[in-house]
Amino acid sequence: MDVSQVIKTRRSVRIYKPDFVPEQNLKKILDAARLAPSAHNEQEWKFVVVKDAKTRKKLAEAAHNQDHVAEAPIVIIAVALNPEPKLSSGVPAYAVDLAIALDHMTLQAVEEGLGTCWIGAFSQEEVKKVLEIPERYKVVALLPLGFPMDKPGPKTRKSLKEIVCYEKFSN
Amino acid sequence: MDVSQVIKTRRSVRIYKPDFVPEQNLKKILDAARLAPSAHNEQEWKFVVVKDAKTRKKLAEAAHNQDHVAEAPIVIIAVALNPEPKLSSGVPAYAVDLAIALDHMTLQAVEEGLGTCWIGAFSQEEVKKVLEIPERYKVVALLPLGFPMDKPGPKTRKSLKEIVCYEKFSN
Repeated sequence: MDVSQVIKTRRSVRIYKPDFVPEQNLKKILDAARLAPSAHNEQEWKFVVVKDAKTRKKLAEAAHNQDHVAEAPIVIIAVALNPEPKLSSGVPAYAVDLAIALDHMTLQAVEEGLGTCWIGAFSQEEVKKVLEIPERYKVVALLPLGFPMDKPGPKTRKSLKEIVCYEKFSN
Repeated sequence: MDVSQVIKTRRSVRIYKPDFVPEQNLKKILDAARLAPSAHNEQEWKFVVVKDAKTRKKLAEAAHNQDHVAEAPIVIIAVALNPEPKLSSGVPAYAVDLAIALDHMTLQAVEEGLGTCWIGAFSQEEVKKVLEIPERYKVVALLPLGFPMDKPGPKTRKSLKEIVCYEKFSN
């Protein structure tokens, strides 16, 4: 499937089949994260793959009881190992770097026939406790992964005209 | 080209041909950003497309004299319109949202035979001045876009073993 097709197809999947995810598909998805660019190519990241049902349940609770986090057969937790430095622009590099790696995974998952959902709402402290992540690191997102059961409706998006301007900023 | 091939092929291009980028290719790239997911689907973003040579030169200066910013025939500037709120995890949503949209563009560009380079090092204040972007917004990155002249060498990346762990965090 080409990139534009994958981008059009990718949706936030919130109902998963309980089916096992084959290792070769999981590996391709993790490899997509591995190949992501990062500021100064520092790759200061770690991806925790959780399959254990009890741990997934605890993660769902830490994500304000979003049940689909527990229902997906796999949850990938993206951890920034160096969350302090900001780029000279003032933008936190860790958030950009990890978002790129996560985005690669969401798109690769579509190619593998799998679904994901960006989980940005969770208790940083609780997720760290569940996974024994040191305090100095930062969890950027949780990514449930599995074969999609639901078929979410069409994407609602602004038009290009609303979001693009030329030569100078304009509203 | 399928997603895994595009992810493997994407490189940071720093030498561009001066050739004009056809409108249909540019439109597909902007559309890839448009379709990106964002927290609560808020799409609080704007993409400024700069073709004017004088403006590109000013942007290159604002990016600590990174000449390739001026040499690419197009520079896309990604602007977050709502940079304040943080997710309940403490992660700034704007940086994640804009990084996803930018990542979509870098991958779509590969499919169009074009190259890009993430520019995260720049003066926030100077870029805003050049493009007349209101102070309250935040520029997340500049993305030069054009046909690549150089062929960067292979990617250096950590192994999967170094970046993936299972069930609990471990170094």
